[in-house]
Amino acid sequence: MSITTQPSRRNGVDTAKLFATVDAIKAQNEIAKFQFRAQSTWVSGTHSRSRISGFYGAMQEMTHERETVLEADHPDILVGDDHGPTPVEYLLHALAACLTAGVANIAAARGVDLTKVSSTVEGDIDVLGILGLSDGTVRNGYQGVRVTFHVEGDADEETLRAIVEQSRKRSAVYDVLTNPTPVSVEVVTG
Amino acid sequence: MSITTQPSRRNGVDTAKLFATVDAIKAQNEIAKFQFRAQSTWVSGTHSRSRISGFYGAMQEMTHERETVLEADHPDILVGDDHGPTPVEYLLHALAACLTAGVANIAAARGVDLTKVSSTVEGDIDVLGILGLSDGTVRNGYQGVRVTFHVEGDADEETLRAIVEQSRKRSAVYDVLTNPTPVSVEVVTG
Repeated sequence: MSITTQPSRRNGVDTAKLFATVDAIKAQNEIAKFQFRAQSTWVSGTHSRSRISGFYGAMQEMTHERETVLEADHPDILVGDDHGPTPVEYLLHALAACLTAGVANIAAARGVDLTKVSSTVEGDIDVLGILGLSDGTVRNGYQGVRVTFHVEGDADEETLRAIVEQSRKRSAVYDVLTNPTPVSVEVVTG
Repeated sequence: MSITTQPSRRNGVDTAKLFATVDAIKAQNEIAKFQFRAQSTWVSGTHSRSRISGFYGAMQEMTHERETVLEADHPDILVGDDHGPTPVEYLLHALAACLTAGVANIAAARGVDLTKVSSTVEGDIDVLGILGLSDGTVRNGYQGVRVTFHVEGDADEETLRAIVEQSRKRSAVYDVLTNPTPVSVEVVTG
């Protein structure tokens, strides 16, 4: 008689905890309401610094284990001092990270052990838009974004592709980039 | 007789270089075509790491002065190990950074000296969407994002508000969040 044991973690994902969390949220939807935040301070020129620490979720105020400080700037060619990535590069990182987390979770839930996941994200932008130099035909943001995933694991190609596709379907960042999101901008002066 | 000198930098923005760049792009639109990139590697669970370094712009391959390494993860409450901000928090940082860079540039171009710019960004998300637990009514991404700017400088309230409004109008990240952007996802396996 052979005994099959389920690993407590697959792909580094605690699947028992994942399924328990899903069950808890099914029982009480209010747990699912989150609010994330960033605090940003202008430094000089196009250089700014954001701090990410507190958020709301599971009906309580929470904080990350560590505060994260992020620098953003424009490169010299775009009249900045290059103290960090551009704001639009952070969008590409966010997209890759969201899809990758989904791939790991979904593969774990489906019993697939991954050995490697990497991705390259490219975004094309024509700065005629942000400089106000187009006749209105060039948008400010990316004209298109391409993600290329390399995925390896103990499953056939069709299964691995289906995992990436499911991650795309359930990705928060993919949704925000491909669909309109309401954004309000308030100003307090003095 | 008083002599008024123009500062070479206002708000840390090299305005002479800014106007020269705009003129150069007007003369040759090809300079305005940029491609930004991120390379991401899965670490474990929902933890991934992106590297941002090279980009294309002004008709040539370029690199930032320094490579930036960014960690992303889910917090414990969302079944991650909290090795960094969530992907959706990076979106909030990107939005604040883009709007802030615009405020500094536009204020400089309009001759306004800023003394302080800070902002708070909040995004509401219901994870019923990404967990596939809604009946299709709850989206995966943010249901709404709010930016609150605090701006101080040597101009009246109306002028400062108009600077933020012009930054919003010309922001690449605001555009990507509020309007649909085409995103393709390719998969290479094995």
